[in-house]
Amino acid sequence: MAEPLGVALIGGGIFMKERHVPAALASPVVSVKAVWSRSLKSAEETAKVLADAGVIVEVYSSDSGPGRSYDDLLKRPDVAGLILALPIMDQPGYIEKALAAGKHVLAEKPIAKDLDTALKLLEYYKKVSIETKATLAIAENFRFMKGWAYAADEIKKLGRVTGFAVRVYFMMQTSNKYYNTPWRTTPQYQGGFLLDGGVHYTAALRGLLGEENAVASVIALTSLVSSHLPPKDTVNAILQTRTGVLGSYVHCAGTTMKASDFHVACEQGYVEAGPDRVVTVRGVGEDAKTEEKTFEKSFGVTEEVHAWAEAVISGKPHPEQAPELALGDLELLEKMLTSGDQDGARQALQYQ
Amino acid sequence: MAEPLGVALIGGGIFMKERHVPAALASPVVSVKAVWSRSLKSAEETAKVLADAGVIVEVYSSDSGPGRSYDDLLKRPDVAGLILALPIMDQPGYIEKALAAGKHVLAEKPIAKDLDTALKLLEYYKKVSIETKATLAIAENFRFMKGWAYAADEIKKLGRVTGFAVRVYFMMQTSNKYYNTPWRTTPQYQGGFLLDGGVHYTAALRGLLGEENAVASVIALTSLVSSHLPPKDTVNAILQTRTGVLGSYVHCAGTTMKASDFHVACEQGYVEAGPDRVVTVRGVGEDAKTEEKTFEKSFGVTEEVHAWAEAVISGKPHPEQAPELALGDLELLEKMLTSGDQDGARQALQYQ
Repeated sequence: MAEPLGVALIGGGIFMKERHVPAALASPVVSVKAVWSRSLKSAEETAKVLADAGVIVEVYSSDSGPGRSYDDLLKRPDVAGLILALPIMDQPGYIEKALAAGKHVLAEKPIAKDLDTALKLLEYYKKVSIETKATLAIAENFRFMKGWAYAADEIKKLGRVTGFAVRVYFMMQTSNKYYNTPWRTTPQYQGGFLLDGGVHYTAALRGLLGEENAVASVIALTSLVSSHLPPKDTVNAILQTRTGVLGSYVHCAGTTMKASDFHVACEQGYVEAGPDRVVTVRGVGEDAKTEEKTFEKSFGVTEEVHAWAEAVISGKPHPEQAPELALGDLELLEKMLTSGDQDGARQALQYQ
Repeated sequence: MAEPLGVALIGGGIFMKERHVPAALASPVVSVKAVWSRSLKSAEETAKVLADAGVIVEVYSSDSGPGRSYDDLLKRPDVAGLILALPIMDQPGYIEKALAAGKHVLAEKPIAKDLDTALKLLEYYKKVSIETKATLAIAENFRFMKGWAYAADEIKKLGRVTGFAVRVYFMMQTSNKYYNTPWRTTPQYQGGFLLDGGVHYTAALRGLLGEENAVASVIALTSLVSSHLPPKDTVNAILQTRTGVLGSYVHCAGTTMKASDFHVACEQGYVEAGPDRVVTVRGVGEDAKTEEKTFEKSFGVTEEVHAWAEAVISGKPHPEQAPELALGDLELLEKMLTSGDQDGARQALQYQ
């Protein structure tokens, strides 16, 4: 087996502690060397979780004094890659510094707060990576949940896609641990929770439709249903693919309704997709045959961290972590929000 | 008990034979005196069904010769009311003649093929009824299915409406008996099956939302998914109420997907409505309590015919059969189709 990848964990938030730390510990090709967080307190908490698992790491933070800053961490020769999970507004700056220092990066979705910022980041990445050879991967854990990939395969077997419907309803309550992250409670980026969680759902839908049925344009209206979720908690959209097919896309993070439906209709049947449960209906009407397939529940983070480390070691970036995919996820969401801002004016997409 | 209402049945199609004839027979306040259909063959078939139930009627048709025409039927003093179920294009002309002859009318939905025709019909009705005292009722059987009314009451108990979603998916197959009615196979009216069946769903939604949350505007895209269902079989719309609330409305008559969902979210819970099954969820998240209520399955036609006859006898039109309601049902559907024709341009509504 190849030497494990020396990794630093950047960010001390909920998702880092609860998902990335266990994922890094679980991968035989990851060796965590250091952690960094804005506050020493948070960085030490992460280090403690690692120590409890027998992994002793160096602790860095913004308030640790000389030799313990993010820049100092980037100088470590034993750290080849960084896993970043930082507030949406901050992340691109940290990514750029890491790439400039020649560190491979796996950064949490969304790739950026908006398309402009994402495009600038990608431009910088292309330029700097020629020199430093550092690679940028975006972590979209939905791409590592087995149900979505299986459903995409099922859809391909049922003939032409003829329609689809996405319905994601839930209530982000004020008691939710994610709600209480200050940068999420008072978001300084478009869409608020619609952006933060929303790119997961656009990623899932894009995977189901495939490039052949990529979304070409959207019209949408947006609103704020629950006042604790500014600026918007509801997007109601109609998507049209490059093949002309229409689909409905509704995402509300502030509703009493509950749903998580991803339905894709094809000529010869339809598929109800999900992260760990997929229903395939073959045929139409009374002759239709239904088949259900379930998968072990997984957040996909363990799989994605392992896949990333293997890809870095092998020198071949993982296709499901390409920043261009994350750009497409963000574009689809942003265009829905923009259409909503423009009273439903049709928005064309170009990164699908 | 009052004298039963003398009634003639106009039209010999599937819905007349299968629904209105049994409904008329079931009502103790209806006495069928005559039937009319375009063809004698069809009229005689209807008469036969009645005769089998012990009710002997006079038969009229377009091809029965002198003294047996629609006009002749309208001269019968023993016929006080007409139940009409005719092709969408033809119906208004027959309604107007009946009203002019002083006959009360219960006519099948939709009120007309489009808003213009419906408004002209209503104008004529208002004028002629001053003279003849004849009343016009539109038969929307969904308004007589118990589930919808119960659901509307449940919604009122859950606070402000905050969102809604309608999803009606099915495949109108070429083997369907309704599909094979010539005027439906090659429709000469907007929307094809979307209009014919669609007003049922707009009626249901309007009932659930109530006047307080009436739809004020729509944006929509439309398409033809299954080529045997011209001109359109799919409408994908976003509705906005006068209170600013957004809802999703998707109706596809040519898809392999199957659904019939009418979900309304309120501040304190949500309701999944249906004709004979209603689920009320009170509260949010883990504390939410679910209650399901079922009703005996019914097309509502027996109830509506009986209610109409009682209303005519009592001289007080039934509020759920007011032609203005049917106008609203049609307007909501037509504006979605129009928005689709205009590439999603927002359409304002005025008869809600």
